[in-house]
Amino acid sequence: MTRNFGDRLTAAIREKKAAVCVGLDPLLERLPKALRPADSGRTSAPSPEPRGSARAEPNQSRDREEAGASAAALVAYGRGVINAVAPHVPAIKINIAFFEPFGPDGIAAYHELIAASHEAGLIVIGDVKRADIGHTSAQYAKATLGGPGDDAAVADAVTVNPYFGWDGVGPFVDVARRTGRGVFVLVQTSNESAAQVQGLTLADGSTVCHSVARMVQEWASAEGHVGSSGYSCIGAVVSPRDLESTIRVRALMPNCIFLVPGFGAQGRTADEAAKCFNSDGTGAIVAASRSVIYAYDEAKYRDRSADWQRCVGDACKEFVAAIRMVMPRTA
Amino acid sequence: MTRNFGDRLTAAIREKKAAVCVGLDPLLERLPKALRPADSGRTSAPSPEPRGSARAEPNQSRDREEAGASAAALVAYGRGVINAVAPHVPAIKINIAFFEPFGPDGIAAYHELIAASHEAGLIVIGDVKRADIGHTSAQYAKATLGGPGDDAAVADAVTVNPYFGWDGVGPFVDVARRTGRGVFVLVQTSNESAAQVQGLTLADGSTVCHSVARMVQEWASAEGHVGSSGYSCIGAVVSPRDLESTIRVRALMPNCIFLVPGFGAQGRTADEAAKCFNSDGTGAIVAASRSVIYAYDEAKYRDRSADWQRCVGDACKEFVAAIRMVMPRTA
Repeated sequence: MTRNFGDRLTAAIREKKAAVCVGLDPLLERLPKALRPADSGRTSAPSPEPRGSARAEPNQSRDREEAGASAAALVAYGRGVINAVAPHVPAIKINIAFFEPFGPDGIAAYHELIAASHEAGLIVIGDVKRADIGHTSAQYAKATLGGPGDDAAVADAVTVNPYFGWDGVGPFVDVARRTGRGVFVLVQTSNESAAQVQGLTLADGSTVCHSVARMVQEWASAEGHVGSSGYSCIGAVVSPRDLESTIRVRALMPNCIFLVPGFGAQGRTADEAAKCFNSDGTGAIVAASRSVIYAYDEAKYRDRSADWQRCVGDACKEFVAAIRMVMPRTA
Repeated sequence: MTRNFGDRLTAAIREKKAAVCVGLDPLLERLPKALRPADSGRTSAPSPEPRGSARAEPNQSRDREEAGASAAALVAYGRGVINAVAPHVPAIKINIAFFEPFGPDGIAAYHELIAASHEAGLIVIGDVKRADIGHTSAQYAKATLGGPGDDAAVADAVTVNPYFGWDGVGPFVDVARRTGRGVFVLVQTSNESAAQVQGLTLADGSTVCHSVARMVQEWASAEGHVGSSGYSCIGAVVSPRDLESTIRVRALMPNCIFLVPGFGAQGRTADEAAKCFNSDGTGAIVAASRSVIYAYDEAKYRDRSADWQRCVGDACKEFVAAIRMVMPRTA
């Protein structure tokens, strides 16, 4: 019997007493100096080299070497972050976008860090934001959630875009349900221009984002999706950037765990995050990325920046404490 | 001076007298038998192997070997399709979702087929449907459109999801404009459940899809985006699945080339496609995928199915002729 993802994540949050995950979005130029490859001053990633192409020119094989060195640096750094935060949080969110510029080597690095996170006992959210028509979403689901249930290099959950409706999301849910994995559907994102589409006012006075919230709750509460915790294998990405809307979305989606982005570098506060939890202190996991993984660059950690992993671990602990303070009740 | 993508695509369509592109969405199990790897009967793709992970077990290295064989089969098949259709069409659309299940080898195969398409003189649309917050979309843009303008393994345009608003799209447009490349924003998709979000009725009586259309037209017509053809480096994915809506969307977006999916296997007809063109016969490129690339499986081609490339070429020619017949005027 495969365990429901909503139950798994809820239990892991309770065990660590931390409704927090760390977002691993590594930029080469922000890595600790000692870890950066020699030529990381360049601003753009090397272009992926076509294997066996008639066009393979010297500068392409150099590009490929650079991509390999860059991907190796991301892995070394990622392992350092994973080991620093694993004692404090139940989960890590790895954003594949930061690996894709390095081509095949970047993809291998992404999967290697998923395996390393699992070894450290973390639940892994693959932040991939995929979706397409059903026939094609099935391929994305295979790529990002597929494989046997115990495979170390496959994420435990992924993020998915709702613009195609159920056709784009369903193939991910099919795999997730079968393998004890999860899907977080984008509902209210953290970026400045989020409201251009998500905030459009509908004929009934609600917004696109509220309508998507209702739709996702319907999918989340369908037969076989809700675990004994009351939470579904289908959750939602909800940033508290619009507080009134967040309170409404929380009420519309009782069975969904919220993955809450936008903290630290993106400017959201712990008090705003509190609105993403249900009244019993469950139902949300708050992500911090840049403010934790680059802590060694912050003024407050500068005196110990030589020990970058300690800075990351300390920033993580502080973030966990900040969220614990504002949660409706410590679950 | 870099040439505008709207101009490039319009000129290429005119040169080939074909407002058509072929969609390369290859499924291993539908490849001609002679090209399938020995064990392609399995229904799920192998899981990507983490390199250098402590967990590397015998079944993972077998998985990696299988992924390599599968990716090689996709390349052999893709090259066959490219050579069969290149005389007839100006462009090819390669969907990365069909390559991602094979991990790093799949990504290498995707880029190898982009290079092969360029060698065959085709414009390449990378069907990647990415988007995230701006900071992250910039990484996706690097991965999918980055690299120097003459790089053979990088697509000429990509598809992008509008759910984040401009933040998600802008980073792609920045790269596209600088390098003579293009961006197609999803507006009206071809799948059954498209209307769940795209068809929501707004307070002003229009729909989400119409509002997205207006927004994309605004971006498309901004300074520096429109070429001498009147078309922008920003286009739109518009399926004519709802005819009334299609006519409205066409009127709302005069500067956008429409990438029109949903033909053949997805059931749209040439007459419906005609509604996606402007009155002078320009402004759209119609994509056919399964009905062309798997033509050797169709009853009408069965007598010559041994020569699978000829079947693909013939189906492509017929599709070009069918679209030519219904275009408002041959451009």
